[in-house]
Amino acid sequence: MFEFMSDLDSLIEEKTGLSLKEAMSIDEVNLYTRLGEETFWNLSKCFYSKVYSDEEEKWFKNIFKNKPMDEAIQNQVEFFMQRMGGPAYYSRRKGHPALIGRHMNFNMAEKAAERWLYHMRNALEEVKEIDEDSKIRMMKYFTHTAYFLSYGVSMKKN
Amino acid sequence: MFEFMSDLDSLIEEKTGLSLKEAMSIDEVNLYTRLGEETFWNLSKCFYSKVYSDEEEKWFKNIFKNKPMDEAIQNQVEFFMQRMGGPAYYSRRKGHPALIGRHMNFNMAEKAAERWLYHMRNALEEVKEIDEDSKIRMMKYFTHTAYFLSYGVSMKKN
Repeated sequence: MFEFMSDLDSLIEEKTGLSLKEAMSIDEVNLYTRLGEETFWNLSKCFYSKVYSDEEEKWFKNIFKNKPMDEAIQNQVEFFMQRMGGPAYYSRRKGHPALIGRHMNFNMAEKAAERWLYHMRNALEEVKEIDEDSKIRMMKYFTHTAYFLSYGVSMKKN
Repeated sequence: MFEFMSDLDSLIEEKTGLSLKEAMSIDEVNLYTRLGEETFWNLSKCFYSKVYSDEEEKWFKNIFKNKPMDEAIQNQVEFFMQRMGGPAYYSRRKGHPALIGRHMNFNMAEKAAERWLYHMRNALEEVKEIDEDSKIRMMKYFTHTAYFLSYGVSMKKN
């Protein structure tokens, strides 16, 4: 039997150098309580303002061309707050996060994961309210997740 | 552009008569705190003992034939506790729930969703520690989720 998920975990660990335990270290603290809603909103606004004005890699911003920026921000920030210890904002409005399912119609090439992480790393640096420990935990989680989606979607499509 | 997720929501609502708000009413209370870990374990043990001994519909128990029952129970109970207000037990051990992604290699026909719900409804009745209000919330969530997976997986495969 094809062990899809354990193969995927090994692949991500090999690529990122992060164990699942490290990737999920966001769960060892409550980042929602620690950072507060305003900080989460600032992060997603900062991230998407970079994405939607990415003139260097236009193919990347084109992934989002049918999605108004305020919707992209709301979806992301509600998911982040829910996943990092806050109320179930995302599920109340949208249902199951179903990360692989919801990303199957988009360009999830490895270079898209890398560009996503490039903008997120810069956004985390710019939002000064985010302390160093939180930044490290979030970046590990985001790195794992970006490759989880890139590899997961491509394995499911083939 | 194909609006996969909003089409899926309408389809599920039409089939089940449940709005997304009703389906996600598990989030209006903390069921993990209310019911406690032992009750969640009892529910998943009761559910899978029914599934693994389903002699009436052998095709259904065959879906699980490569999975030891204790693993199936642990995966389910950790996901339920995490999703219903408890610690992130599932993600610490397995990562993203990614419900559609993780169900793509299984038989997710509509009659499989129905058989899953049949056993879960009976298990909820048998575990006497679960009060009526919790039972209703959980059954709505499970009903939504069973069709979400059945329709979601088949839309992604096509």
